[in-house]
Amino acid sequence: MDYLTQFKSIRDYTIQLCDPLETEDYVVQPIIDVSPPKWHLGHTTWFFETFILKQFVEGYKVFDPEYDYVFNSYYETVGARVIRTDRGNLSRPTVKDVYAYRKYVDDAMVKLLQNSLSKEMEEILLIGFNHEQQHEELLMSDIKYILGNNPLFPAYKVESALEKKTFIPSPEFLKIKEGLYEIGYAGEGFCFDNELARHRVFLNEYSISNQLVTNAEYLDFMEDGGYTNFNFWHSDGWAWVKTNGIKAPMYWHKIDGQWQNYTLSGLQDLDLNEPANHVSYYEAAAYASWKGMRLATEAEWEIGAADFEWGKRW
Amino acid sequence: MDYLTQFKSIRDYTIQLCDPLETEDYVVQPIIDVSPPKWHLGHTTWFFETFILKQFVEGYKVFDPEYDYVFNSYYETVGARVIRTDRGNLSRPTVKDVYAYRKYVDDAMVKLLQNSLSKEMEEILLIGFNHEQQHEELLMSDIKYILGNNPLFPAYKVESALEKKTFIPSPEFLKIKEGLYEIGYAGEGFCFDNELARHRVFLNEYSISNQLVTNAEYLDFMEDGGYTNFNFWHSDGWAWVKTNGIKAPMYWHKIDGQWQNYTLSGLQDLDLNEPANHVSYYEAAAYASWKGMRLATEAEWEIGAADFEWGKRW
Amino acid sequence: MDYLTQFKSIRDYTIQLCDPLETEDYVVQPIIDVSPPKWHLGHTTWFFETFILKQFVEGYKVFDPEYDYVFNSYYETVGARVIRTDRGNLSRPTVKDVYAYRKYVDDAMVKLLQNSLSKEMEEILLIGFNHEQQHEELLMSDIKYILGNNPLFPAYKVESALEKKTFIPSPEFLKIKEGLYEIGYAGEGFCFDNELARHRVFLNEYSISNQLVTNAEYLDFMEDGGYTNFNFWHSDGWAWVKTNGIKAPMYWHKIDGQWQNYTLSGLQDLDLNEPANHVSYYEAAAYASWKGMRLATEAEWEIGAADFEWGKRW
Amino acid sequence: MDYLTQFKSIRDYTIQLCDPLETEDYVVQPIIDVSPPKWHLGHTTWFFETFILKQFVEGYKVFDPEYDYVFNSYYETVGARVIRTDRGNLSRPTVKDVYAYRKYVDDAMVKLLQNSLSKEMEEILLIGFNHEQQHEELLMSDIKYILGNNPLFPAYKVESALEKKTFIPSPEFLKIKEGLYEIGYAGEGFCFDNELARHRVFLNEYSISNQLVTNAEYLDFMEDGGYTNFNFWHSDGWAWVKTNGIKAPMYWHKIDGQWQNYTLSGLQDLDLNEPANHVSYYEAAAYASWKGMRLATEAEWEIGAADFEWGKRW
Repeated sequence: MDYLTQFKSIRDYTIQLCDPLETEDYVVQPIIDVSPPKWHLGHTTWFFETFILKQFVEGYKVFDPEYDYVFNSYYETVGARVIRTDRGNLSRPTVKDVYAYRKYVDDAMVKLLQNSLSKEMEEILLIGFNHEQQHEELLMSDIKYILGNNPLFPAYKVESALEKKTFIPSPEFLKIKEGLYEIGYAGEGFCFDNELARHRVFLNEYSISNQLVTNAEYLDFMEDGGYTNFNFWHSDGWAWVKTNGIKAPMYWHKIDGQWQNYTLSGLQDLDLNEPANHVSYYEAAAYASWKGMRLATEAEWEIGAADFEWGKRW
Repeated sequence: MDYLTQFKSIRDYTIQLCDPLETEDYVVQPIIDVSPPKWHLGHTTWFFETFILKQFVEGYKVFDPEYDYVFNSYYETVGARVIRTDRGNLSRPTVKDVYAYRKYVDDAMVKLLQNSLSKEMEEILLIGFNHEQQHEELLMSDIKYILGNNPLFPAYKVESALEKKTFIPSPEFLKIKEGLYEIGYAGEGFCFDNELARHRVFLNEYSISNQLVTNAEYLDFMEDGGYTNFNFWHSDGWAWVKTNGIKAPMYWHKIDGQWQNYTLSGLQDLDLNEPANHVSYYEAAAYASWKGMRLATEAEWEIGAADFEWGKRW
Repeated sequence: MDYLTQFKSIRDYTIQLCDPLETEDYVVQPIIDVSPPKWHLGHTTWFFETFILKQFVEGYKVFDPEYDYVFNSYYETVGARVIRTDRGNLSRPTVKDVYAYRKYVDDAMVKLLQNSLSKEMEEILLIGFNHEQQHEELLMSDIKYILGNNPLFPAYKVESALEKKTFIPSPEFLKIKEGLYEIGYAGEGFCFDNELARHRVFLNEYSISNQLVTNAEYLDFMEDGGYTNFNFWHSDGWAWVKTNGIKAPMYWHKIDGQWQNYTLSGLQDLDLNEPANHVSYYEAAAYASWKGMRLATEAEWEIGAADFEWGKRW
Repeated sequence: MDYLTQFKSIRDYTIQLCDPLETEDYVVQPIIDVSPPKWHLGHTTWFFETFILKQFVEGYKVFDPEYDYVFNSYYETVGARVIRTDRGNLSRPTVKDVYAYRKYVDDAMVKLLQNSLSKEMEEILLIGFNHEQQHEELLMSDIKYILGNNPLFPAYKVESALEKKTFIPSPEFLKIKEGLYEIGYAGEGFCFDNELARHRVFLNEYSISNQLVTNAEYLDFMEDGGYTNFNFWHSDGWAWVKTNGIKAPMYWHKIDGQWQNYTLSGLQDLDLNEPANHVSYYEAAAYASWKGMRLATEAEWEIGAADFEWGKRW
């Protein structure tokens, strides 16, 4: 795919993700780790404006000089401002303003991408693509948080029910032989710096499940006192459980004696055969400990996962 | 004015105040003391629905049973909910939903108010009017906070410049004789319970300025080290100054060496002849102390203010 | 009593109060509002050294120049120090050092007080006396807190049981007529500035109990749901109850189904006929509200209390 | 060494470490990570009482049943207590009480250790020895914190100056070949569980300095803007620097333009040839980054350090 097509495709997909949102959904920031969707829209745009258009387009006029402050993410290097501006406090720029900003920058980018690119610009462009795709992931996670923590539990988009899975997952443990393995990115194209360098690690023989833990299995853990027995937990994790009164994974709600799960289609009866998700590291570690196992290390996971096609059942 | 006309007039005025807002401005809650404008719109509506329509209209069907949770203000009495809902986290109900809620309730109210009212209902209605008017004041204060703490400093509504005041205020101190005075609400109509009971107080002779402190005077205080000399401040106030790095009243910004004031028309050069406003109790007390005076007590203020027409110059 | 005798008597009494303490009890600061006893001992000494000896004794040599930092209470005016020094973190100066400091200063004071005093010095001396007596009150309150919040509940000093009171208190409400009253210090000698100026207040007719609320009465309030019904509480007070899980006055402990009260003689069965004490303003206001009454204002209390001999039964 | 001799030697050494302390130094807890010395003395004693004497000595009578609450470290499993007990709030038990507790337990242990031990008891005994030795390390670190954060900077114990080192350290970088290495405890005797299991790791070729970073080198980092340039720091580390106003390692104080270092002998001129110590992980990582290097991983460090005798110069 040429750069122009790629650019359009990525930029369009971000907007497509926001399509089901109401204006109000773009604005809020329920917790510090969530960014308002309009900030994601603005920030990814600011990236192309700041690192490509301002650098490589002679005479480029920025859309609004104030946006540099509002949409950059390196607050450290920005001069002191007189007022405190949490992302979730900002009603302006409006969503409409942000879409106008996107269009303005996209138009300039499209024009630029019709020419041949210098090597330097090409590299920044690729970072911009990957940067925006990373924010697409964050965006979905943040949208789910915003809607799933609203007492009305609005659906993002009601999907027609997928064909019901009827099998019961029957995990097998794959044995991985001891030996020297290589991990890290081995491809040709773009990768983030923390995926490098490709390097060797020694792994002792270990076994790893070929299936993800299901909600049914996680429920067993809960019903066996998972959240009340500190023996399963890291010390930090147990403090987290007690301080926050954690009793179930995020998005699980016991309503009238029945476990419900907030999904992008709204509240649903908990599907026992689906993989458990939105559990924290602490919960995952406690679950493993309850099972008499432990979590895989990063290297064990990477090698185990590379070994076959994961999750084909899901 | 009959009740129906009064009802319409008050309800319309609330909406009129929101007229200059963008959808996004209705949603945010920058600090705990500010409520999102859409919450004010919903809450005042919830009052009429809950205390009048549900009580007095047979067969009344509530607009949405969930709104009772979202728009009541007595969180204490509401049963435990599984999720944490700060007002400023809630993107739903949308602004459009809230306006639909207002219309639904207003229609029912208008119909009801065409009949004659029981004494009991009349009393609740009057509370509802005053309750909404109180929220209109809060609304303006909250809107100013939301816009005035945005780094873009958007104007609420740019007014054509008022005719420039050219006089220099020359305050005089009014002497109030010692004696027994009556304070508290003395009228016939509605008042809030904390304006009662009318009662006698003894005041020693005192003097009180017949004009409000101006920005010019307050600036003198600042330039004389008002915010750096702890002798002027209550102990609590000084802690507040130091903890928060307070250096000027809220909404004052020194930009390129010039004091600017955020007003509903946006950032403006500080008008030296206007009354200083948005100062906290601590700042007012420190200013008075610097002047070698003290703040008036509530009773001194009420009697002093009743004595003549205040603020006719402003 | 001449100044020298007064000085000795006050200084001795402070030490007498500390007599039952172990060295360790002098050191700790369980909460920010409590000062370690050794700090009280040092600070009252520092007062005489700083404001009398350093001012009026030619060639006076301070005991230790560092103590000015350690024992002053006006941290605001002290230059920045490189380390954070909460009073309760300081193991040094030791208790022995502090007693040596007291002796050093007392010796110099005793010598000085054998001469005639200037008017100016006399005034400061009187402040020093009253300042130390104020700290004696704080000292007892702080000692009780330190011992009463230790899981071993050590007694300060076990008193032989006072003769058991056998009567049941039967409070009467005194009616105070409406009228102009004078409040504030009216004597000749020393008083603190907040006891001045003597001034007139108008009081409406009111009634005030001639006896203090007993533990029995307070227990009635508790057993009638005093700590669980938010209607009795100020909004701030209710937040305090909920945030801190308050269920009884400080020092009350329900042990094996029986209310115990930590007293200076250690844990004791709650004496139902004693006045309730160590209740906060919030608790007092909630109790009054439950009774269908309200707390007296400062002026009502001062006039009501001046009217007869209080507490002769206790 | 037989168990009895070992027991006595370890128990004595703990007390020896406390020898220079004043009673007051045993009591305070300036920060949450520091435990009061008397708690260390009591806790290590509680270990032998709880896991050996109570288990293996028939009819053993505990010194004080309350101490189980005061000196255990597993607060999680202890039933709810009515009062909050931070270790640093507790003036009782006194230091004298704690020494009596030690003596009581030691006497019983000495008697027990004169008999032959079961395998099970032997294992617990070894844990007790190592547990106490671990607390000896903590004790020294906590004592230094307590004294070194006192504004009087008391010395722990003034040592006669060691013979002055005159050489300038000249570090060399040792090259470690790539390959499979074994790490983890390989000995016969006791080790903690986190030193196990002995396992293989693959290391890429790397270089590691054969000397520790000196204060002189660390000062170069500081003078080159180490604490003001966020590029050197992890994001978390930079937040730590800014939030806490960190400008130098703990215990370094610039006094009258000269760097002083709080040592166990009190404040001393900074010795430029000594290894930099009391730097946090963040500071170590920032220093390495400034050097154009990185910190060694745990495995790199273990293998590098095993390769030759470290620190023979210090």
